[in-house]
Parts: sequence; C-alpha cells; structure tokens
Amino acid sequence: MSSFFKNQLEQFQEKNQNRGRLLVSCPDQPGIVAAISQFLFSYNANIIESNQYSTNPEGGRFFIRIEFECPSLKDKAKDMKQQFVEIAAQFSMEWSFRPVFEVKRTAIFVSKELHCLLELLWEWQSGDLLTDIALVISNHEEARDVVEGLNIPFYYIPANKDIRAEVEAKQLQLLKEHDIDVIVLARYMQILTPNFVAANPNKIINIHHSFLPAFIGARPYERAYSRGVKLIGATSHYVTNDLDEGPIIEQDIARVDHRSNVEALKKIGRSIERSVLARAVKWHLEDRVIVHQNKTIVF
Amino acid sequence: MSSFFKNQLEQFQEKNQNRGRLLVSCPDQPGIVAAISQFLFSYNANIIESNQYSTNPEGGRFFIRIEFECPSLKDKAKDMKQQFVEIAAQFSMEWSFRPVFEVKRTAIFVSKELHCLLELLWEWQSGDLLTDIALVISNHEEARDVVEGLNIPFYYIPANKDIRAEVEAKQLQLLKEHDIDVIVLARYMQILTPNFVAANPNKIINIHHSFLPAFIGARPYERAYSRGVKLIGATSHYVTNDLDEGPIIEQDIARVDHRSNVEALKKIGRSIERSVLARAVKWHLEDRVIVHQNKTIVF
Amino acid sequence: MSSFFKNQLEQFQEKNQNRGRLLVSCPDQPGIVAAISQFLFSYNANIIESNQYSTNPEGGRFFIRIEFECPSLKDKAKDMKQQFVEIAAQFSMEWSFRPVFEVKRTAIFVSKELHCLLELLWEWQSGDLLTDIALVISNHEEARDVVEGLNIPFYYIPANKDIRAEVEAKQLQLLKEHDIDVIVLARYMQILTPNFVAANPNKIINIHHSFLPAFIGARPYERAYSRGVKLIGATSHYVTNDLDEGPIIEQDIARVDHRSNVEALKKIGRSIERSVLARAVKWHLEDRVIVHQNKTIVF
Amino acid sequence: MSSFFKNQLEQFQEKNQNRGRLLVSCPDQPGIVAAISQFLFSYNANIIESNQYSTNPEGGRFFIRIEFECPSLKDKAKDMKQQFVEIAAQFSMEWSFRPVFEVKRTAIFVSKELHCLLELLWEWQSGDLLTDIALVISNHEEARDVVEGLNIPFYYIPANKDIRAEVEAKQLQLLKEHDIDVIVLARYMQILTPNFVAANPNKIINIHHSFLPAFIGARPYERAYSRGVKLIGATSHYVTNDLDEGPIIEQDIARVDHRSNVEALKKIGRSIERSVLARAVKWHLEDRVIVHQNKTIVF
Repeated sequence: MSSFFKNQLEQFQEKNQNRGRLLVSCPDQPGIVAAISQFLFSYNANIIESNQYSTNPEGGRFFIRIEFECPSLKDKAKDMKQQFVEIAAQFSMEWSFRPVFEVKRTAIFVSKELHCLLELLWEWQSGDLLTDIALVISNHEEARDVVEGLNIPFYYIPANKDIRAEVEAKQLQLLKEHDIDVIVLARYMQILTPNFVAANPNKIINIHHSFLPAFIGARPYERAYSRGVKLIGATSHYVTNDLDEGPIIEQDIARVDHRSNVEALKKIGRSIERSVLARAVKWHLEDRVIVHQNKTIVF
Repeated sequence: MSSFFKNQLEQFQEKNQNRGRLLVSCPDQPGIVAAISQFLFSYNANIIESNQYSTNPEGGRFFIRIEFECPSLKDKAKDMKQQFVEIAAQFSMEWSFRPVFEVKRTAIFVSKELHCLLELLWEWQSGDLLTDIALVISNHEEARDVVEGLNIPFYYIPANKDIRAEVEAKQLQLLKEHDIDVIVLARYMQILTPNFVAANPNKIINIHHSFLPAFIGARPYERAYSRGVKLIGATSHYVTNDLDEGPIIEQDIARVDHRSNVEALKKIGRSIERSVLARAVKWHLEDRVIVHQNKTIVF
Repeated sequence: MSSFFKNQLEQFQEKNQNRGRLLVSCPDQPGIVAAISQFLFSYNANIIESNQYSTNPEGGRFFIRIEFECPSLKDKAKDMKQQFVEIAAQFSMEWSFRPVFEVKRTAIFVSKELHCLLELLWEWQSGDLLTDIALVISNHEEARDVVEGLNIPFYYIPANKDIRAEVEAKQLQLLKEHDIDVIVLARYMQILTPNFVAANPNKIINIHHSFLPAFIGARPYERAYSRGVKLIGATSHYVTNDLDEGPIIEQDIARVDHRSNVEALKKIGRSIERSVLARAVKWHLEDRVIVHQNKTIVF
Repeated sequence: MSSFFKNQLEQFQEKNQNRGRLLVSCPDQPGIVAAISQFLFSYNANIIESNQYSTNPEGGRFFIRIEFECPSLKDKAKDMKQQFVEIAAQFSMEWSFRPVFEVKRTAIFVSKELHCLLELLWEWQSGDLLTDIALVISNHEEARDVVEGLNIPFYYIPANKDIRAEVEAKQLQLLKEHDIDVIVLARYMQILTPNFVAANPNKIINIHHSFLPAFIGARPYERAYSRGVKLIGATSHYVTNDLDEGPIIEQDIARVDHRSNVEALKKIGRSIERSVLARAVKWHLEDRVIVHQNKTIVF
C-alpha cells in the first residue's frame, strides 16, 4: 500500500469510525422498519440516511439501506451483528451489516485500453473512490508502469481461450491471497468461465461499451456506426454467466451524428465508459446496490 | 367538476383509500425513525416508500417522507392524526399527515402565453396530475375557451400595478371560496404583493423562464441571447417576497447555439418550462417537497 | 383548411416568398461547391445557411444543404430548376430544389394513444410545425373529436391483418387525393405492407418507443422493465420493409430507476416520444434530412 | 518535446499534409461562397466540411468555416494565402487561412487544483488534443511532477496581486519565447490585467466553475449550495477585461440535489469543468470558433 493511500485511508477511517451501513431485503410486511429502527436506537445509533423500496405493497419484497452513526461502533459492531441475527430470522431477511471503516478490497482487471483503469486510479487518488486497490491483473503489459508507479501490485497473466482454466486458477489464487471483495473489469477483454463467475456472485462489475441491450457482444461501436444511431452509450453491470445479460447498475449516453466515424464514436464512448464505470463502482463500494431478480435497486 | 374528472377521481380515491403520507422535519437525534415506525406499526400500517435526509449527523435537522398502506385508513385517519401530536411534541416536529384520497385543490393563474397551462391540463386529463383544478384565474381572455371546454371555472380579472390591491382581494376571495391548497403561476405575468404571498406560504409555485439565479427578472430570453449562452433553462420555485429568489423545486436546461435568435430561444424554452413546471407541481401534489431555509428537499 | 391555419400559412408564405432550399448528394470531387454557388450567384441568390459533409475525401460521397434568399424567387423558381438539371448531370447529383413557400402536405396516421398526435397538432397550432396537415387517418375513433375540432379531415378506417390489402388501398387512394408529401405514423399500431412502403420511399416517418436497436418489435416498455435498464428512449425513423430497421432520424432518452414499473415507464416514455417525433418531423419538413445507405445525414 | 509526442505529431502532420482550414467573416452579400469556392477549386482543393451562418439575410454578417484537401498544400500554401488577400479585400473579410500541419502551440496556466490540467494532458497523450503543449506556468508547485514527467517545461512563478506587473512581464516573456498561439487557464486562480489580456485577444481560454452568468466571480459552488440550485455547471470562455463576461465557447451542467453539500458539489463540478474545458480547447485548436460581438459562433 502506498504511503499516500495509507494516509488517506487513515483519515477516512478516523472520520468514519462510528459510521455503519445496513442493507436488508425480505418479504414485505408491517413492522420491519419499526424493528430495525428500534434495534438501532437500542444501540443509541442515529440514522443519517435511509432509503426504502417495496416492489408491491401486498406480497411484495422489501428493500432498505440505512446509514447510521453509532457512538463507539468499533466496540459494538460485533455484538450488533450477532444481535441482528434474531431480527433477520424473524423477517427472513437477506442482510449485510458493515462498519464503514472496514474498507473494501478491490482487484482491477484490464487489457490494453487503459482509460477506465486510469479514471478509477484518478478518482482513487483524489479520494473519491474509497477502497484499497489491492492488485491489478492484466493479460497485457500496457498498464504496468502506471500501476506500479502508484505502488499497486501488478500481475501480468497472459490469457487466451485455450488456457482459460489455468489463467483463472492463477487469478482466483491471487484474489484469495489478497482477500478481495470486489472485482472490476475495466475493459478486460477476456470471457470469464461459469466457474470463475460462480466463485464471485454479484462481486464482478463490468463495463460494456454500449447502452445494453443494444449491441450485446463484440464490436459495439462498429455496429452502432453501421446502424446509424444518434446516441451511443455504455453500461456497467454485474457479471453473470449470460454474456452482457447481468443486472445493470448504471448506463449513460452521448449524442453523436453522421460526422462521427467509428474512431470518433470510440473516442466519445471512452468518456462515457469512464464515468459510468466509476459511478457504478462507487455505488457498489458505498453499499448502495442490491440485486434482485437480475435487476438492481440503487439507493 | 367535469364528469370525466369525477370518474377519474373516484377511481383514484378507491385505489388509494388506504394510502397515507407522513412528512416530518425536526432537530436530529437518535430514536426518531424508531418512534415513527413504531407508531405506524401500532396501526398495522405498512411502509411502502421512505426517504430520509439529515443535514448533519450532529446537531443537524432531520427530514423524512413516508408513504404507507394502512387498512381502514378512512376510519383511523382522524385518530392517527391526534395520536401523532404526542410524538411530534416529543421531538419538536413540523409535520403533515395526509391520506392520499384527500386530493388537493389547485388554482392556476395564467396570462396570455398558454403553453404551461396547456401542459398542466394535458397531464391532468391523462391522469398524471392528480388534483382537483378548482379554477383558473387570468388577467386576459386567451385561456377562457380551453378552460371552460373542460368544465373548469374561469375567472377573468384584469390586472395592472395600479389596481393590484383590488385585484388580489378578488383573487384571495376566490381562493377562499374554492378552498384552495395550491396556487400555480403558469406564466402569470403580474407581481404578487407581500400581502398575497404571506397569505399563502410555500403554496404558490411559479415557473421562471431561466435557470436561476441567471437572468433574474424580466426578459430572460432576450438577455440570454445577448449574453450568448450555450444553454437556456427554466426554474420552478415557491414564491416568496424576493422576486425569483424563492426555494427552487426543479430546473432543467436545453442546449442552444449561435443560430438561435430570441424567437428560437423562446420556442425551445417553452418546452423546458412546460416539463419543469409539470414536474414541480406533481412533486408538490405528492407531498415530496419540504422547504427548509429557502431551499427544498425533494424526496 | 381552418381559417386559423390559412391565415398563419399566408403569413409564412409572405415572409418566405424568396427563400429556397437546395439539397444535393453526389460522388465527391473538387468543384461541386464552386459550381453550385456560382449557379446561385448568377440568380443573385444569397446563401443564408449551408451545411456540407463528405463521407471520405477520396472517392466518397458529398452532401450539401443550402438555404438561400433569392429576389423574385416565385418568378425564377421554374427556370432555376430547369437550369440546375445541367449541373446535376455534370456531377451525377441526386437533388431537390424547393421554394419554402411550397409548403409540404402531411398525413398523420394514429391509433388509440393520442399523445404524439396531440404534440404535433400543438406545435402546428403554435406555428412551429409549418405544414398543411391535410388529413388524419385512424383505425380507431379516439382522435376524431380533437382532429375535426381543428377542421382537419378525419378518416376512420378499421384495420387488422386480415384486411390489410383493402385498408391500404383506401389509404393510398386518400393520400393520392390529398396530394400528400409526408406520412407520419404517430403511434399507428398496424404493420405496413411492402407495397405501401414502396409507394412512399423515405416519406413515412415512424416513432418507435425504444432507443433502437434495443427492444425492436412489440412491447418495448415491458421488455425494458424486465431487463432493468436505467435509461428508456424513443426513436424516430423512416419506415422500410425491415421492421424498426429504417434510417434513424432522431433518438432521445430519459433516466429511470428501480421504482418505475411498466406504467411509469410508459408515462415517462410518452414525453420522449412526443419530442423525438416532433423534432424528426420538423427536420424533415425543413429539408434537413438526407438518407444514405440506411442512415441519415441531418443538417 | 517528448519523443512520444514528437512521434505522434509527425504521424498527424503526415496524415494532414494536404488539409487546410479557412475561416471567414464579412458583411453578408450574394457571391461570397461562389468566390471562395471558385478560389479553392482553382487550386484543385476539395471541400471536405463546410459550415456557414448569417446573422441576418439583409445587411447582416456572414461567417464560414471550410476544411479542404488540397494536393501539395505544402508547396501552395504561401501562394494561396497571398492570392486570397484580393478576395478578402473585395468582400471586406476578416479571415484566417491555416494548413492543419502547422500545429498550434499552447501554454497552460494552473494553480493548485490539477483536474483540468490533468484532463488536458490525458487527452493530449491519447492524441485527441492535437497541439504542442510548449509550457506550463503555475503560481504553485503542485503540478511540477506530472508536467515534467511528460517532458513539458514547467515554470513556477509565484503570484499575488501586489506583484502582478512583474509576474505578467515574466509570463509574457515566456509566451513570446515559446511563440505561443493559445493560453489555457486551467483553474488558474489569478486575475489577469488589461495589459495581459490586450496582448492576447481571443487567445486566452478560461474555465469558470458555474453556468455563467449565474455565480459570476468567486466561490461559485458555495453560492450554488446556498441558493439551493438543482443544477450546477461550468463555462469555458475567452477572457476579456470584464471578469467572467467574455464570449462563451461551451457550457454544461450536472444535476444535483439536497444531499450534495459544498464538497460534493465541487466533486461533481470538477467532472463538468474537465469536459467543458477540453471541448472548448479542442474546438479552438480545430479553428471552429469565431468571436463576434462578445459571442461565439462554434462550427
């Protein structure tokens, strides 16, 4: 870890020593908010931000994200987690309870095009992307200098479809060694196997260079050009086994016209890809995203 | 009331007979959400949507909007309101508790340019703006036909700065007779006196044809043209005694270029004014807006 | 023709009595602009606006749109057209030369959902859509009142796939009788046969309720909901025999989130459909669109 | 000059060896386009892109930008410039004739906040901003490492209002030595004197962190927060002696809400500032901007 980031991290942890986040989804019924808020109040926690959504008032599913300040959270966190188990059982909740000072650990995968990686590193350096970037893995050498220049470990693992199994074995080993919470595919141009995906459910965030479901698959800018669209876009989504079909976290577009050839579309598109991926990763790191039935609720 | 709207209204009230909304703002402290949600649970109410915001975890102000389903709300509403007084006192709350079937009553003021009025009437006819438009008041006759064609009472009250007191006396009398909750200035080109404004705090919604605070006051499109801006906009805000300085509810912009003369800017602008005002009115009607220190929280 | 529109039309024609437009596309080579501008100058015409685009400097295709003022255009127009034939032959041009006072004649097709029709009628009434709306054809009765209220002929022609041939025969007959230049499908929910399309090349403008090529075909909002997209859109395009595959004129999008159910998506979408179709029709009427290889150049 | 950029530059110059641009503004009259296009044709130049605009068909001003391919432009350029003087005189033109291979030389001024500088350097490295960045001048040391790391000369010139004259004398001397065409103020937080501005008319591009004319002057984000706007923006403009009143080149905005405190507004704003300034500089470098009466025509 670079001393620069170490310093930044310590400031962040100091500032957020009492800040926690609770994410819950469960079958809807009266009394859920009452139970949760009573629970938090019993620890003298103050709810700072709360967002709730129900798919359907009758027989639907309930989702909530709560951010709270709790004095001496460090000392209480373990106990709170244990105590919450009872409420969770009562309402059949899926849930996560996370003190904000437990910063998530991220791995970035990248190939030859570096713009998405650079955007993430930039946001990270300016303190807007609070995560410990534990390593960068690439099937090319292009990113090495910039990554190592920031004291982040860089692993060059050549990849192609014939050696996919060995490659992923190495990658999974590294992810395990570095205790990774989030994997960001920042224009990593290799397909992941079901084995790799299954090992990391709702933990792999990809950027696809089109506004999905338009232009699923390869060469979206070439196909956008050939179709004569007036908007191009980018989509960030969790990776599932169906190519480009995972839950969408964020999308955005830019206006183009007849003067834009494929090269121009790519340039314009890079700027959208950068900001869409950065927003998606940020929201994931802030525990703002819940996946439900191949869709996301973003609070 | 037109039979068309009467029918639409009845359907809406039937569908929302158990739906209520609670808006609260108060000094922040632990336990507020617990108290409110416990209160709702005690009536077997199910929270459908909830949004909360605190200006500052320590010593700040707390805001919440809750939408809930409560069986037999019609029978319970009066009692709930009375019981909530106690909680409100405990936390020094400003609050409103409103069953959704108590549809708000709206007055629209308009002058010669009808596009904003027409947009509101259109949304109203298509069921997207659920309010009882009780009357339209104008200092011109242009709107009479379209308003009366929808069986909405139309009052022509000529106005100018010399007779402002008498004009407003008539208007206030009409507002009282029609028991009005909301006043929408849909391009009403007369200045209101402090007396009129004071009688309707946070109840008058205006549309200003610029992205405030740029081009406060008269002739914003002419001044936008002369300044050579590349964006024009519109702003919807609550009316206070400071011209164009009231709390902003919504703003939007459109891109323009050197080819747009003043007439073209006005055409483009009309489309933004229409949608910005319609959104602001809709949010107000849905109790989504809280005013705090000359700003709005829009949930 | 309503007396209202007749009056508006006369003003427009008076104001534009000397205004003309020239659209050209041809193989690129040096000297084209020189030849065209020399030609216009020889009639003492002043170029007001000119836009040009070449697909490729070497061996590509050249496109230009020129708007000019020419004294006594009414008297000269016929001669200018004849004289231009020679230049056109020299450079193998496809071209159109059109005095602006020769206002285009439009037919609007609509089914049960009226929002796109209403937007067009609105823009037309406010003078922003300068065309003679010669008739409205519908397979339902919903639009009759509003259309006839504006003194526009309304034809109710029930339609379904079993009687398509007879229906289209009637429609083509009406289009011929009314000497129609442009056909706007303002949410007309019937598929046109190749016969009908072939009779009206690059003259039929459709609005599709998705950002194509996403959600080609039926029920796009339902599919957008089910896919969990964060943007919905609309596309206006010329109709060809490939469903939703014709040259795109304009597209736009709006942001949505997890709270929007199908009904909410449709409401948000209606507003985009309205503005996208209105822009596309306006550009077509102003001779701003050239079709080339299933794409549009919009000047 | 870094060897990296030297290589990139040579490729660009090779590719654009026959590409030229002509910018003209003059009183409008028939025959201008004919004269210009005949002139270009006489050198066998092929017009690739052309945009024209007239403020008013009668007695207005005419503006045109033409991009052309001309075989052996290198050999002809000097002669073309001389010959064009005659046409220019005939029509009282202000004009510039510039072969694209004559790449402009840019100076960037920056203070402590580096995001705009970094964006420009990034675009420059990826080949999207074709200019020779000849030097960076700063009143702080923050930017030194990144600038010198790219082999661009960095000059640290401390500045404050008491030593403005000496500081500007040094700066003007450096600009002269480096033969600078364009000065970009990439968040340079010092006011320039009329003397400095007069020495560089329409050559200094600034980024202001608000959508002008809103929040002219200091601390725009603080004032945006305090006003409770729902949109924040950035404006790039040429610098004149009236603070933040120069001709606007480009503006853009982002949506914000009540949750954004000043710090959050600044973060969101940085992203807009980056892209707005980059677009404005790019357009200036491509000779797309003409200044007329304190406004810009952007072709």
